[in-house]
Amino acid sequence: MGTENSLDHRYRLEEKTNPFLPSISIDCTIFGFHNGILKILLNKFKANSTWMLPGGFVLLDENVNCAAHRLLSERTGLSEIYLKQFYLFGDTLRVNPEENKNILENVGISTPHWLLDRFVSIGYYALVDYSKLKIYSNENEKVEWFQIDEIPQLYGDHNKIIEKAIKSIRSQITTVPIGYELLPEKFTMSDLRIIYETILDRKLDRRNFQRKMLATGYVVKLDEVSKKWGCKSATLFTFDKDKYNYAMKSGMAHNEW
Amino acid sequence: MGTENSLDHRYRLEEKTNPFLPSISIDCTIFGFHNGILKILLNKFKANSTWMLPGGFVLLDENVNCAAHRLLSERTGLSEIYLKQFYLFGDTLRVNPEENKNILENVGISTPHWLLDRFVSIGYYALVDYSKLKIYSNENEKVEWFQIDEIPQLYGDHNKIIEKAIKSIRSQITTVPIGYELLPEKFTMSDLRIIYETILDRKLDRRNFQRKMLATGYVVKLDEVSKKWGCKSATLFTFDKDKYNYAMKSGMAHNEW
Repeated sequence: MGTENSLDHRYRLEEKTNPFLPSISIDCTIFGFHNGILKILLNKFKANSTWMLPGGFVLLDENVNCAAHRLLSERTGLSEIYLKQFYLFGDTLRVNPEENKNILENVGISTPHWLLDRFVSIGYYALVDYSKLKIYSNENEKVEWFQIDEIPQLYGDHNKIIEKAIKSIRSQITTVPIGYELLPEKFTMSDLRIIYETILDRKLDRRNFQRKMLATGYVVKLDEVSKKWGCKSATLFTFDKDKYNYAMKSGMAHNEW
Repeated sequence: MGTENSLDHRYRLEEKTNPFLPSISIDCTIFGFHNGILKILLNKFKANSTWMLPGGFVLLDENVNCAAHRLLSERTGLSEIYLKQFYLFGDTLRVNPEENKNILENVGISTPHWLLDRFVSIGYYALVDYSKLKIYSNENEKVEWFQIDEIPQLYGDHNKIIEKAIKSIRSQITTVPIGYELLPEKFTMSDLRIIYETILDRKLDRRNFQRKMLATGYVVKLDEVSKKWGCKSATLFTFDKDKYNYAMKSGMAHNEW
């Protein structure tokens, strides 16, 4: 593999022993919202058919949370991202050793290799503004958004990691800024509701939802309508940033649904 | 150190290279409730003055969550314990290398030693029934309960780990079974309220609290009074186990305070 390949450079796969903190990897579930659908960013080696969560390793002199920020920034080009650690995945059989070996050999990495050692993985989730993120594939790597209901069978335990990320957000739905981080500055109430419905995995009453959201004080109705797609116009809303931050800080965000 | 010492056996300190999964340790914040006060279990090497959280390492062929259960069971003699992973502590300077070296030398471990390598620590919290747990010190190790408002300066970042454990429970106060796991079968409403007040770090209105707790349906008033300490008698309550489990499962535990 060429030395100009950013993927190889990041992973330092050419090194014969693990140059990173042993046993530990990071996997990021990156959520974006586009055209009324919640999506997750996945990548894969072009020589392989198996999609995986974007991730990487921790430098020997690097804080783990800093490593996660660095990896995400390398991927997305964004430096200010809402990123949360949510669980450590530490089962011995979280990755099938044979599958792992095949994948490495397909991309031309000779085994044994330190990538075949046991790794526990620290799960992070990120909430990004879809419109601000430019994804780019390179010669060896493909990067794509997948609809949350169309995630394929992923590498190792990565499907389980996504499921746990969603459950983790769900269990703290009143304090995780899902709408605030995922939506553009102006949005429709329907988009905001869809995000909540997707995370909670159930339908919410349209009028009740709008009433509760407006009651928080930090969701504000604008004097504008959306004309996107030429279909029926919809009223636009925005977040009052000061009120939102105050509500989050004081833990008074809103009641449960 | 003698071979009969259970502490040495657990840590396998005599081995020259780390016999466990590299870079990873486990630290447990064990909560107990006694005489109206929330307490945390700490231990220390007798040759040292520094108290620490009970913890240990992961075997090469062991799931991380299983390792946490094993470590806790070795400590407490209890096998069925409410135990939750809550955060990975991964800062490079989470332990002072000089302090670490001094502690090892005090207990007769010659350095360099693999215990001085960089470890990230997986934080777990446990909720135990104080009355069921028998703590025992041995020739090298001392084990003691500490009131939550009297925790001394601990090893490395262990004070921060406790703080984060409490915040983690606080952020999920409606679904973490703090009262259920910490209290004996029969308890006073005042004891239940003190647990919530300690975790939330604020006073709660006595009558409001009782009203809300009874409204859940799973806190049941008994036809008995407490005569403990010979002071004013107090009505006893118990948890309706079926209703409690159903509420937890359905996420309908109770509203926020």
